[in-house]
Amino acid sequence: MAAEIDEQPAVWSRLLGEGRDQFRDAAGIINRRSPRFVLLAARGTSDHAALYAKYVVEILHGLPAGLVSASTMTAYGARPDLRDVLLIGISQSGGSPDLVTTMEVARAQGALTVAVTNNPASPLAEAADLHLDVLAGPEIAVAATKSYTAQLLALALLFERVRDGPTGDTAALPELGAQMLAAGERLASVADRYRFAQRLVTTGRGYSYPTAREAALKLMETSYLSAQAFSGADLLHGPLAMIDPQVPVLAVMAGGTGGDAMRQVVPRLREVRADVFCVGSAEHVAEFQDGVALPDGVREDLSPLLEILPFQHLARHLALARGENPDAPRGLSKVTETL
Amino acid sequence: MAAEIDEQPAVWSRLLGEGRDQFRDAAGIINRRSPRFVLLAARGTSDHAALYAKYVVEILHGLPAGLVSASTMTAYGARPDLRDVLLIGISQSGGSPDLVTTMEVARAQGALTVAVTNNPASPLAEAADLHLDVLAGPEIAVAATKSYTAQLLALALLFERVRDGPTGDTAALPELGAQMLAAGERLASVADRYRFAQRLVTTGRGYSYPTAREAALKLMETSYLSAQAFSGADLLHGPLAMIDPQVPVLAVMAGGTGGDAMRQVVPRLREVRADVFCVGSAEHVAEFQDGVALPDGVREDLSPLLEILPFQHLARHLALARGENPDAPRGLSKVTETL
Repeated sequence: MAAEIDEQPAVWSRLLGEGRDQFRDAAGIINRRSPRFVLLAARGTSDHAALYAKYVVEILHGLPAGLVSASTMTAYGARPDLRDVLLIGISQSGGSPDLVTTMEVARAQGALTVAVTNNPASPLAEAADLHLDVLAGPEIAVAATKSYTAQLLALALLFERVRDGPTGDTAALPELGAQMLAAGERLASVADRYRFAQRLVTTGRGYSYPTAREAALKLMETSYLSAQAFSGADLLHGPLAMIDPQVPVLAVMAGGTGGDAMRQVVPRLREVRADVFCVGSAEHVAEFQDGVALPDGVREDLSPLLEILPFQHLARHLALARGENPDAPRGLSKVTETL
Repeated sequence: MAAEIDEQPAVWSRLLGEGRDQFRDAAGIINRRSPRFVLLAARGTSDHAALYAKYVVEILHGLPAGLVSASTMTAYGARPDLRDVLLIGISQSGGSPDLVTTMEVARAQGALTVAVTNNPASPLAEAADLHLDVLAGPEIAVAATKSYTAQLLALALLFERVRDGPTGDTAALPELGAQMLAAGERLASVADRYRFAQRLVTTGRGYSYPTAREAALKLMETSYLSAQAFSGADLLHGPLAMIDPQVPVLAVMAGGTGGDAMRQVVPRLREVRADVFCVGSAEHVAEFQDGVALPDGVREDLSPLLEILPFQHLARHLALARGENPDAPRGLSKVTETL
């Protein structure tokens, strides 16, 4: 897991270099079809990349988007009218039968289908009209790290091409990622604070909400605590009741609209004397007792690639601090087959 | 909270009686517009009614559906193309500013907008093209109970009308609800088992997944434990690692496709020696050491009205067993205003 975390800047460079033509080609086909609605299908870590893409599509493309409840087309046999729909299936392995079925049904029902995987020879890639390879290389650790940020970058590059063509803002990401990873070394000592925590809450809004979700999943997978992610707004609609000084909060607050929207949440967290660790802009981090600052000037929609890095470190160090093996979480295998 | 839980069969009778014409009228307008996509906007408990409606729309109507990330239209100012979209906003109070803004933007962007609230004079009702009143009467307890099942029934009745007209299968619900509530008396003793639990997992698939989500929220709101809901499939994609005999599992397994799809999950829960309490068909309950059986012969898409009742009882009794006041959870107010 440590090696795969460290590999991420190199994976991003590969996608930005040899991988870039695939986005131009796919974007051309998507634009010719002019989809009016975007559906995303994924599970686990990939579902958080799907949620990221949902924000990109809704905010930057002005198209309505939804996450597919896979069981409707698999278990329930629904055959929805999917003309004018772009359906994107996201999966590291490309191997889960429910996603493959969803892709096949969607294609038969009129959707333009795109598979985003780390395996061009996978059933999901075969089932789709188009395949995008995230080029993360073999991922061995059960807890996905480099394949997640590679999915984020692939989706960002795809939609950048669908819009206006590449902006060049992505070119700096590998260097910024390397800086964030270096800053993440201190997470080994931060992890010690959570050594005996049994429950924890993560939160963010907008583009940072998928990061909060993914951070929670990493902590559950490697360290077996109950980590719950809420959008900052949803937190105030009920779950806030369970937060007290014994339930640590990890807040993701990048610079920009999502981080600003979290300002409504901060005083409420203070009222309940929550213990907050913040990954976000230097300004937001300064509001709390502890945190890791993101580099200045990163576009908000690209920040999720950087935000997740300290949480990957945290998940790994916390597992080690607890005497667990982060490379082989109990009860899980690398390819999960759900029906 | 106890009084409002007990009132539910009477609320359902009201919706099925004096309330029924509103569904015919709204369905007529919806059918004349022939929407091709459905979006649902809600927060907190109402978001679980929205998730229920998503399954109804995808499975029974064959239309793609999505849950709106409210911040995209409010904080980020997205102005998506929503022609041919039916947008349904769901809220007990009809008062949260972010939902009102979402409704106004959606209407201006071409969507047909429907508000489902418990307050016809609310800003959300005013902002929408159509309003459906769930007729639950004043709800005082912070933890929503009767307004939730009234929302479920209103959505079921609306979409039944959009499809083929009423089937009559709903007529028996008040009587079946009263039976379930009577069976729920024993939850007082069940609650005792969870007196010292700090964390808990709920799970279900298909129509029962919204029940799992709502059960988790009720337990968080009233009893302040970390209650996490996962679809049965998502549970296997990572979170299973954190389940051991110390993390109780509440499984929702009604008769039908969703409950059957959970069969894949049951052996995995056994492997990790999970402590499972099941609300579901008599057959599924018999597989576990403990549970509450649903009445036979209820249509699967109507089961969520009945499934949630034992969990409402459980949330209330557990709060009492812990010395908390279920009527007034700490840190929450009845109307939550998020931006």
